[in-house]
Amino acid sequence: MQARNLNLKSTPVSAALSAFLNALGSSLSPRFERVESGESLGRILSQAVYARASSPMFNASAMDGIAVNAADTALAAADKPITLLRGKKYQSVNTGDPVRPPFNAVIMAEEVRETGMKENACDTVELRSPASPWQNIRTVGDDIVRGEMLLPSRHRIQPVDIGVLLAGNITEIDVFKKPRVAIIPTGTEIVKAGAASYKEGEIIESNGGMLRAMTWECGGGGTLYPPVADDYTLLRTAVKDALATHDMVLVNAASSAGTEDYTASVLAELGSVIVHGVAMKPGKPVILAIVDNKPVIGIPGYPVAAHLAFNIFAAPLLRTLSGCHAENAAIGTAAPLHRALAGCSEGNAPTIQAVFSGKRASPPKAREYIRVRVSKVDDTYHAVPVGHGSSSAMSLVKADGFCVVPENKGGLDAGELVPVELYRPLAKIEGALAAIGAEDIMLEIMSDIFLTMDVGGFSFSSAPAGSIGGLQALKRGECHIAPIHLLDENSGEYNVPFIRAHFKDEDMALIKGVRRTLGLIVQKGNPLNIKGVRDLASCRYIHRQRGSGTRVFCDYQLKQAGLPALPPDTREATGQLAVASAVSSDSADAGLGVLAAARALDLDFIPLGTEEYDFACRPRHLELPQTKLFLKILTSEAFTRRLEKSSGYTFDRCGDLVMISALP
Amino acid sequence: MQARNLNLKSTPVSAALSAFLNALGSSLSPRFERVESGESLGRILSQAVYARASSPMFNASAMDGIAVNAADTALAAADKPITLLRGKKYQSVNTGDPVRPPFNAVIMAEEVRETGMKENACDTVELRSPASPWQNIRTVGDDIVRGEMLLPSRHRIQPVDIGVLLAGNITEIDVFKKPRVAIIPTGTEIVKAGAASYKEGEIIESNGGMLRAMTWECGGGGTLYPPVADDYTLLRTAVKDALATHDMVLVNAASSAGTEDYTASVLAELGSVIVHGVAMKPGKPVILAIVDNKPVIGIPGYPVAAHLAFNIFAAPLLRTLSGCHAENAAIGTAAPLHRALAGCSEGNAPTIQAVFSGKRASPPKAREYIRVRVSKVDDTYHAVPVGHGSSSAMSLVKADGFCVVPENKGGLDAGELVPVELYRPLAKIEGALAAIGAEDIMLEIMSDIFLTMDVGGFSFSSAPAGSIGGLQALKRGECHIAPIHLLDENSGEYNVPFIRAHFKDEDMALIKGVRRTLGLIVQKGNPLNIKGVRDLASCRYIHRQRGSGTRVFCDYQLKQAGLPALPPDTREATGQLAVASAVSSDSADAGLGVLAAARALDLDFIPLGTEEYDFACRPRHLELPQTKLFLKILTSEAFTRRLEKSSGYTFDRCGDLVMISALP
Repeated sequence: MQARNLNLKSTPVSAALSAFLNALGSSLSPRFERVESGESLGRILSQAVYARASSPMFNASAMDGIAVNAADTALAAADKPITLLRGKKYQSVNTGDPVRPPFNAVIMAEEVRETGMKENACDTVELRSPASPWQNIRTVGDDIVRGEMLLPSRHRIQPVDIGVLLAGNITEIDVFKKPRVAIIPTGTEIVKAGAASYKEGEIIESNGGMLRAMTWECGGGGTLYPPVADDYTLLRTAVKDALATHDMVLVNAASSAGTEDYTASVLAELGSVIVHGVAMKPGKPVILAIVDNKPVIGIPGYPVAAHLAFNIFAAPLLRTLSGCHAENAAIGTAAPLHRALAGCSEGNAPTIQAVFSGKRASPPKAREYIRVRVSKVDDTYHAVPVGHGSSSAMSLVKADGFCVVPENKGGLDAGELVPVELYRPLAKIEGALAAIGAEDIMLEIMSDIFLTMDVGGFSFSSAPAGSIGGLQALKRGECHIAPIHLLDENSGEYNVPFIRAHFKDEDMALIKGVRRTLGLIVQKGNPLNIKGVRDLASCRYIHRQRGSGTRVFCDYQLKQAGLPALPPDTREATGQLAVASAVSSDSADAGLGVLAAARALDLDFIPLGTEEYDFACRPRHLELPQTKLFLKILTSEAFTRRLEKSSGYTFDRCGDLVMISALP
Repeated sequence: MQARNLNLKSTPVSAALSAFLNALGSSLSPRFERVESGESLGRILSQAVYARASSPMFNASAMDGIAVNAADTALAAADKPITLLRGKKYQSVNTGDPVRPPFNAVIMAEEVRETGMKENACDTVELRSPASPWQNIRTVGDDIVRGEMLLPSRHRIQPVDIGVLLAGNITEIDVFKKPRVAIIPTGTEIVKAGAASYKEGEIIESNGGMLRAMTWECGGGGTLYPPVADDYTLLRTAVKDALATHDMVLVNAASSAGTEDYTASVLAELGSVIVHGVAMKPGKPVILAIVDNKPVIGIPGYPVAAHLAFNIFAAPLLRTLSGCHAENAAIGTAAPLHRALAGCSEGNAPTIQAVFSGKRASPPKAREYIRVRVSKVDDTYHAVPVGHGSSSAMSLVKADGFCVVPENKGGLDAGELVPVELYRPLAKIEGALAAIGAEDIMLEIMSDIFLTMDVGGFSFSSAPAGSIGGLQALKRGECHIAPIHLLDENSGEYNVPFIRAHFKDEDMALIKGVRRTLGLIVQKGNPLNIKGVRDLASCRYIHRQRGSGTRVFCDYQLKQAGLPALPPDTREATGQLAVASAVSSDSADAGLGVLAAARALDLDFIPLGTEEYDFACRPRHLELPQTKLFLKILTSEAFTRRLEKSSGYTFDRCGDLVMISALP
């Protein structure tokens, strides 16, 4: 075993950023460039812009009509019309035409009666009321006066600004130059996406594309380098090359304690490493270095850690360089660099207060960032942690925001009110129908159909927690509906007995969903010749998690067959596809799930029985527009057609309502 | 005079849009294209995306450490360490390395004691605790399972999505194609910006650049054509050409009743005009036509009308075509097209309730859109109309939003609560120090310095209303501070007597500002040899508006000299630069103003005296962070240096506070 960087330090987040900024000092200065006004949408002005021309540039008619000298019309009256001769006493003008002396007023066309006609154009007009001097004339500078400040410093150019710049004869403006960021993925095992198949051990490069897009969102421009193998010299060359043409370099992965992690040594040779290791979770193995007076950041490899490290350490620098920091700062706080120091990881995220669901222990002396889904139920926001590790990129896609556990707080308690910084607009969260409970492929189809229905911002958001977990979440008010499939062994009835048991004092509703086929998912071709639950004890069986309806179903099937329960296992799959995946990758021989999951990974399926997959709900939430939409989709042809493709589903009672009264 | 389109109809806004959409029917269908995942930031998915690969693709170590078979470690204990031999019983692994049978668990490096050393690598390790099966292993599909829905339909791609797409081996995605919009400015007098000088009658093309940028914001791509002269054949050719390569055409201007307005006739010949003339103010002369099954919209020429017509008629179509309509729809309402029909002109603007300032009569049977500045003072939003006509592009730049006066409402009353659709984020409005009152160049410098100070979202927003208007606005609570320069003729004292008179029952504060020189602004070289107020009666004098401190100063100077007041004029300049502009363009010989205004337009200046330009304020607002910042800037060297360039200012009492007690 080679020497490892076991001595990663744990510098607190604020101290790390602070040290980095101090070391960077004035080398973190924005640069500017001149761009065409017409192409400047979204760019940030480096300085105030002053008009070079007035608008209008001459006294101009504000109407279609005739230009007159007001004095000539003074005697006009309804009963004593006056007549003016064209050329001498009036002139036809269109909107925008110059009005020159002796004319000093415009009368709109609708108020003019044309009298004498001459070659298709009248040569006299009749007026019945006098004109005031300067009426209907836009005098020079009416809109813009030459020398006037059109737009202030640090202003982000909007479409109307482009119109005003051009009207003020400003064809070029000075704006913040976009900082150029090089992103260097590293790792011999890292390969590009797009291949038909991959060798075992190869990992698709995916952080680089994300990081590049993140630089765009901070007003920068990103260059994604091809992956660099784990080789000291290659990495050094790549970093040197990138620095020659970029303002910042991000080296992805290779910053931890692995044997092939050369980044810190390379950066120490080329320049100086200010910080290696930050007391945050996830994201500990961050490197903050300076080479050639430019920031070089070692970004951890796991997607969640990479995302967070970028937001905390790279984003504030980029926003400063690109000039878009001012507008991202929230009201009442210091500048974004200082906000970042104070622990706010994102500059422009709205923050809400939410009830935290589920106790969470955080590591001592480290700041933890917990991704959460947020639901709004009965005017309360609830934050439910999502994802079980920093390796889950999907958890970032699914999270609505995150909350921060400060150093030394030790964790969060269930029911505690926590601030959540949102990844999405609040409106999206407020329009969502929140479902927590048993997982099924129908939920993602439901979510998809919601979005294609074009119904004004409503969406469907589901989180897996198993059937019992769903009922508990519903009880705590964390969701609107709980998808469940729970068989009562005594009565043989589905779901209703469990709702009654969990909600003794409340009237409840059950929305009938689908009937689905459960069975054993086994290897393609069923090499072990598994025929039913009888064969499970002698093969590698992958359990679903406790509290899931599927686990209850399995125990019931074994009991019915007079067999003992299967021994527990430290590994439990938390979803249908996870079961199929374990079988598909040959780390299990069989697991229980739905036909759709077996089909998705081209596995064999041995049907064991059908079950009822329904939705528990509080009656008052049936009135929500998003619940009504849910019911509408549930009974729609679009839905059944999409789900039938996955097969194993029937829809005879789908959308029916069962009302369950509170116990007397 | 040629035949004019005097017969513009007045179709109500909703009816106009409705008729247009009905006529367009299914020709308004989005198109799709395939783009690279890495380049797809901000694009909208046309359909759900499913993973083509699992992540991880193999059972992978989640740690740097050693891979073992859990069974081999079962007997390890703190007091009974076991020893494992490399190769046979363990293997070194880095994070992400495959873990193959017989190994099924990973022990982190920190928990392993290396013992026997062989050629720089240890060949045995010692363990003091057992490992559980599958610990520290990310099993296949832990993050993403092949076949799983990664992202739903209509989803706008975020940076994290790019990471997930690549990790799921999706290198290309299907997205909504950006609709191509041609913008054709028309008018023989329309010329491009950038010339050193212009002939009288020439107008700089500025709407086109604005409209093109507006198409970008709706997810489209715009082509700006060179201006087309007022010629039937040229316009017809340009429209035909544009339609061949674009999905929508906007013809700017030439849609009113002017003699050279051919657009309606051209469109009627090429296709069909659905609506010509909409009952809205501004923006009446809109044309909605269909040519070659594509929408062609005649957009009015005045910037405010153009902006509004685009937002009401073009934007909903573009959002539908570009797929970004769903996310722009607000919660609880119908789709944006229907929202547009219901009178909401912008899809994604937040709406607030604000107290309307200043009575406003609206035209009967037309829907009026009033641009307003919004201030937040003591938890109340106030909306103050801005701009005096649809020709003022600067009013769009300065407005924070607009309110809609429905058809037949007749107008808005002072103090009425009105909904305001915002152009800017609410946070920007809430962080602003609102000033209403006398205008001075120092206000725009103040606004500029606020933005360069990088102080977390605070800004300075000022609106001109004259000194008396400012005190009245302050009284009504519409602003935080009122810039005033009011001379009390009896006492010779500035400002304090006026505050006392307006706020009899309140303790007030006066922030001392600058001392500035007022004088007569006259033509360069002073051809009329104007020497003082004595000469004003015999020249064309341009008044400032009533209630302005400058007007009071003028009257006082005349009185001091024993001269009669000057006769009133229908034309009144509403700002310093407006006075200078009237003189510069030779529509006046003299006006009263500050030296800076004369300098800005290279005019001569005859000093008459100095005056005190201060700020009235409620004492409690002195505690606001934005007021503190204002005071800090007021006394800063940066401020005095910037203002000295404009000259005529002195700063001896700048920033001093004068407390004015309520009358007993």
